[in-house]
Amino acid sequence: MSERRVGIVGYGVMGRAHAYAYRTAPLIRPSATTFVPVAVSGRDAVRVGAAAASMGVEAMTDWRALVERADVDVVDICTPPGTHSLIAVAAAAAGKDVICEKPLAVTALEAAQALEAVRSAGVRHAVGFNYRRLPALSLMAQLISEGALGEIRLWRGTWLSDEFVDAAIPFDWRFERSMGGTTIADLGSHLVDLALWMVGPIVEVSATSSTFVTSRDSPEGPRMVEVDDASSALLKFAAGAQGTLEVARSAPRRPCDFVVEVNGSRGTAIFSYARLNELWVGYVDEDPRHYGLRRIRVEHPSHPQTAGWWPLGQGVGYDASLVNQAADLAAAWPDGSYEPDFVQGAAVVDVCAAMERSAAERHWIHVAP
Amino acid sequence: MSERRVGIVGYGVMGRAHAYAYRTAPLIRPSATTFVPVAVSGRDAVRVGAAAASMGVEAMTDWRALVERADVDVVDICTPPGTHSLIAVAAAAAGKDVICEKPLAVTALEAAQALEAVRSAGVRHAVGFNYRRLPALSLMAQLISEGALGEIRLWRGTWLSDEFVDAAIPFDWRFERSMGGTTIADLGSHLVDLALWMVGPIVEVSATSSTFVTSRDSPEGPRMVEVDDASSALLKFAAGAQGTLEVARSAPRRPCDFVVEVNGSRGTAIFSYARLNELWVGYVDEDPRHYGLRRIRVEHPSHPQTAGWWPLGQGVGYDASLVNQAADLAAAWPDGSYEPDFVQGAAVVDVCAAMERSAAERHWIHVAP
Amino acid sequence: MSERRVGIVGYGVMGRAHAYAYRTAPLIRPSATTFVPVAVSGRDAVRVGAAAASMGVEAMTDWRALVERADVDVVDICTPPGTHSLIAVAAAAAGKDVICEKPLAVTALEAAQALEAVRSAGVRHAVGFNYRRLPALSLMAQLISEGALGEIRLWRGTWLSDEFVDAAIPFDWRFERSMGGTTIADLGSHLVDLALWMVGPIVEVSATSSTFVTSRDSPEGPRMVEVDDASSALLKFAAGAQGTLEVARSAPRRPCDFVVEVNGSRGTAIFSYARLNELWVGYVDEDPRHYGLRRIRVEHPSHPQTAGWWPLGQGVGYDASLVNQAADLAAAWPDGSYEPDFVQGAAVVDVCAAMERSAAERHWIHVAP
Amino acid sequence: MSERRVGIVGYGVMGRAHAYAYRTAPLIRPSATTFVPVAVSGRDAVRVGAAAASMGVEAMTDWRALVERADVDVVDICTPPGTHSLIAVAAAAAGKDVICEKPLAVTALEAAQALEAVRSAGVRHAVGFNYRRLPALSLMAQLISEGALGEIRLWRGTWLSDEFVDAAIPFDWRFERSMGGTTIADLGSHLVDLALWMVGPIVEVSATSSTFVTSRDSPEGPRMVEVDDASSALLKFAAGAQGTLEVARSAPRRPCDFVVEVNGSRGTAIFSYARLNELWVGYVDEDPRHYGLRRIRVEHPSHPQTAGWWPLGQGVGYDASLVNQAADLAAAWPDGSYEPDFVQGAAVVDVCAAMERSAAERHWIHVAP
Repeated sequence: MSERRVGIVGYGVMGRAHAYAYRTAPLIRPSATTFVPVAVSGRDAVRVGAAAASMGVEAMTDWRALVERADVDVVDICTPPGTHSLIAVAAAAAGKDVICEKPLAVTALEAAQALEAVRSAGVRHAVGFNYRRLPALSLMAQLISEGALGEIRLWRGTWLSDEFVDAAIPFDWRFERSMGGTTIADLGSHLVDLALWMVGPIVEVSATSSTFVTSRDSPEGPRMVEVDDASSALLKFAAGAQGTLEVARSAPRRPCDFVVEVNGSRGTAIFSYARLNELWVGYVDEDPRHYGLRRIRVEHPSHPQTAGWWPLGQGVGYDASLVNQAADLAAAWPDGSYEPDFVQGAAVVDVCAAMERSAAERHWIHVAP
Repeated sequence: MSERRVGIVGYGVMGRAHAYAYRTAPLIRPSATTFVPVAVSGRDAVRVGAAAASMGVEAMTDWRALVERADVDVVDICTPPGTHSLIAVAAAAAGKDVICEKPLAVTALEAAQALEAVRSAGVRHAVGFNYRRLPALSLMAQLISEGALGEIRLWRGTWLSDEFVDAAIPFDWRFERSMGGTTIADLGSHLVDLALWMVGPIVEVSATSSTFVTSRDSPEGPRMVEVDDASSALLKFAAGAQGTLEVARSAPRRPCDFVVEVNGSRGTAIFSYARLNELWVGYVDEDPRHYGLRRIRVEHPSHPQTAGWWPLGQGVGYDASLVNQAADLAAAWPDGSYEPDFVQGAAVVDVCAAMERSAAERHWIHVAP
Repeated sequence: MSERRVGIVGYGVMGRAHAYAYRTAPLIRPSATTFVPVAVSGRDAVRVGAAAASMGVEAMTDWRALVERADVDVVDICTPPGTHSLIAVAAAAAGKDVICEKPLAVTALEAAQALEAVRSAGVRHAVGFNYRRLPALSLMAQLISEGALGEIRLWRGTWLSDEFVDAAIPFDWRFERSMGGTTIADLGSHLVDLALWMVGPIVEVSATSSTFVTSRDSPEGPRMVEVDDASSALLKFAAGAQGTLEVARSAPRRPCDFVVEVNGSRGTAIFSYARLNELWVGYVDEDPRHYGLRRIRVEHPSHPQTAGWWPLGQGVGYDASLVNQAADLAAAWPDGSYEPDFVQGAAVVDVCAAMERSAAERHWIHVAP
Repeated sequence: MSERRVGIVGYGVMGRAHAYAYRTAPLIRPSATTFVPVAVSGRDAVRVGAAAASMGVEAMTDWRALVERADVDVVDICTPPGTHSLIAVAAAAAGKDVICEKPLAVTALEAAQALEAVRSAGVRHAVGFNYRRLPALSLMAQLISEGALGEIRLWRGTWLSDEFVDAAIPFDWRFERSMGGTTIADLGSHLVDLALWMVGPIVEVSATSSTFVTSRDSPEGPRMVEVDDASSALLKFAAGAQGTLEVARSAPRRPCDFVVEVNGSRGTAIFSYARLNELWVGYVDEDPRHYGLRRIRVEHPSHPQTAGWWPLGQGVGYDASLVNQAADLAAAWPDGSYEPDFVQGAAVVDVCAAMERSAAERHWIHVAP
């Protein structure tokens, strides 16, 4: 059993969640290679120290030093979106494989730079669209790719959060576009990744954005909020399907309610994250006496991404998506392929950028090829 | 107790449902004036005869004769959308009050003609947007107008049906645009009415439409389908809110699943027609320990549109919206006012027409004032 | 088309609901015979007058006079349970067919007297267990009787209401056992009827009862409450199944939440009244990839008790159960058979009486044959 | 930071789940003491070897040797129920602290022996009723103990599983009463623990049991199944509340659907495991316009057992209950107290034993004090 040593850049929620995943993946799904965190970096020495202690790894305050450690094989980037590309480029230059949290970048240019860097360096690369590794969403993708739902005609995705509802939340990096990215980039990227994965390329978008709380307090006085509170978009897929996408951080009492539905010529499938162990599916050719949708408990051994998890009915949580991601990476690297990688990550950024531009220019935008 | 004699044009599902409502309204909510159907018209003598017998009224095969009967005070139009305006104009000319099923018309011009006719004739007019009379949607409107949800920022409405999924359904008037109207007009008009009622004028739209089954069999051979299977739109409200609207008749195993949600600065409210006795509501200022949404059983005597109905928890169905509509009309006419009337009905058509044009021209369209 | 003239005894919620049903049944499901209310009786002249006006029938203050009217063919008993048997006996003696609201009586003796009276008189008889006429419960019974669920092993029924939660509600006839009957009799009788209908005879019960608010105010001072607030029971069915039943009027914010579930050797079916247009069903032999339960929208034309109702997805309410009951009675009488009749009604009372006795004596009780 | 070294007896699902919990607890909730697994035992050398490798600990085939290892501070018993007491007694004799999976034992005698052993040895003891550590059930207990629901009147708990539905499942230890315990002991013990924890002592029970598949294949031919497929019980609590409990492993397509509800004089709370991040709560004194139950998303920082977990709305799974249990144990031991311990574990066995006896003797049974 070989080890791949991981350096985690960023000790926030995502850094900690990734550490959790590396720690548990071998227990859920043993593989020949295991990922073992060895260091975590962050600017605040006290806080990164505490985080490192809880992870059982070394603390560092300079991410560049972490990236260049000889004992680091894989760099896992868990910092704010605006820093992803820079760190990825540095990691690639240091010859490290790179796992980057989503979105790959907050602009199409930065995403392209990151992609170019890993390609030039010949290192492996992955983007942390963890929801692909939830059993229910995996089953949904499987049903679509098998044709069980027929030709996909309609796709809809919404992500409703209340993160920005409170006007009293002071300005921080999340409201700074070059650091946090738009809400389209932050929440929308997950939805776009799922859409591209399940239905294929998006060719054209029409979008609109609103910022309801336009300025927020900061130690230096009020600052303009640079990102959207909410955005919505119409989508045209290359394969002929039509879609709608909506993201909002201004929906009271909606913490992270993301819903994805597809309607095909032969069936419908619906996933609602608030019930992440379930998938609703109905087919047109079923006995009309059973007219309706079935609620599949996606915990059966025959379902994807359930291997090693709990007995049917016990249910997994958010962490399972990350543990499965870590297990799939451990199984795929260093010799095999893993998706989504920077190619997919950059494609997502392209769609998000097209939405941002459409919202600004108020007309349909072709997604850059 | 005075009687207003009603002539119903059309004996299909809607004609029958209206007859049901007139029959039961006096029992649910007695009023000084009662609406009493006296005749129903339809082209097929055998079928209209059977329908008339079940309604206990006279059958007629000529709607023009019905409209001109001396013993008819109110004409209730329950025919396909493309005929609404013509019949409304004739009824107004005959001096009758007019109740018209939604949508008021399939084009903005026809809607304007109908509105002009009732205004010129000085007759009363109403449009059958029955869902406004559901207790749960009434409560939702009430909470918004009272400011309980704060300033409305986001509105979303979807209506998913599987009416057109089956490609083997032969061509009929529903696929003929000048008769059945688009899916935007048919299903979308309900959503637009609710949006205008709750959030106020819509000023701009960007829409897109698809027809997945482009031709259907007819006795004369294949005919081109003239209406959309599915459409979606981005909305800008005059008051600053942003919205999304989606209608589809191509969603398998989704019979009539319409959902309306608003997010305001202080709260969220969600209505799902499949659970029409419920409204989900949450406020930002609640104890965080109660974080979430409450499911209101909208059957309490303190709720609107519950008077005369069943004990709390027993639940009403679709019919209650029509019975409440009939009771409200009986209470309002002949001396008071009733909404929605042709003014609102025409405003809805204007928004739908803007969406249709936007989908055709593929850019944002200002809604005609 | 012949008419059967109905005299309704009692103008409360149930009297009004039955009047509603007679009025609408011909429109939903036309039949050769129609039931036409002609009179309603009640002790309070003013209130029964108002009720009669809204029903469009004659008001009477003496139920005995109503029962003996020559122009009454059918007596429909909608009074408190403790009066059912007396009125039924009088109606039978007058040669009238009898429809009696549930429960048939509050004691086994009274039930037997009512049954004996209709048998001796040779009149027709029916008991108002209306929920049998809901599409979803009808489908559930159909699936069981067809064997789709296999051999039934477990049955559970609960009915949770908050009717008696408030200790400030003053004493009235509902708290008087000889008039209102126990909660077992009032709510439990519906559940028992469904159990007997679907699973067959119950042979033995063990029950327990509690009264949490033991005395209530009355104009004459505090009075002892004579009925249970809540009761629960273990059941043994003749066919080998085991069951649990619980009824409560002391469950806050649970207005009328009745749930019935069966588990058979081949499948499960669940009905929850709060979603009365749905039935949940799952079979052991389905593809494990579809593991779970399907939510049937019981509104398809292939479903029982949907004839004449609204388009799929629109949904019916409580009233539909009564309208279907009225339509079935009109179709069955005067020449055919109808169930549940007094035989079934008395069998339900026998089971309820056994539960009451078991709760009092605190041991298992065999249900009287 | 000190370490407590854990020896896990049993490498099945529970052994693995406990190892998972020890591994992740320090990351979720760091504490001064951490539990570190050092060895796992099992009879099958190959399988225990694989399990040990995935856990990163030493494999042993003799549990007695594991219990006596000098480097083991805590013995964690994850074997079939019938072996719990024996191993607990041995562990106590070796001076080890003991964590025992539920139920503590399959007979009251064995439970008493285990309790006596840990008391005599003066070692620490805990029982793995992990569901107490779910945020939603913790909140439910908190609301009750604070009096938010008033005086508790009704408690109901059901656990529906399909584990034994298939008659083709061959005989194994689960069907052997002295090894697997009854379904009352296996599933019911969780419900009883929750009931005792939330509502207090149960004083009397009336129960009934059924075994629908009475014999199962074994290599030696058909063997009689010794345990119940399904059992139900009526409960009387010392404080006056009334309860019902039902457990079944014969409910098709119900994998692990456990539901617990309490109705108090002031409110209702409902937990359904299939949606383990939610709690439904309603109070009698709320504005009637908000009549209904609220669905609390029990993921807010103000909620119990959420510390260290994911952002609101992301959701936890089964594992969180075990991780929280491990974190609480690490925080409590070696110096503080932890509940539930063997005292509570034995009290649960007493209630289960009373149910078993009641089902056998068919009368009410007083729970042994």
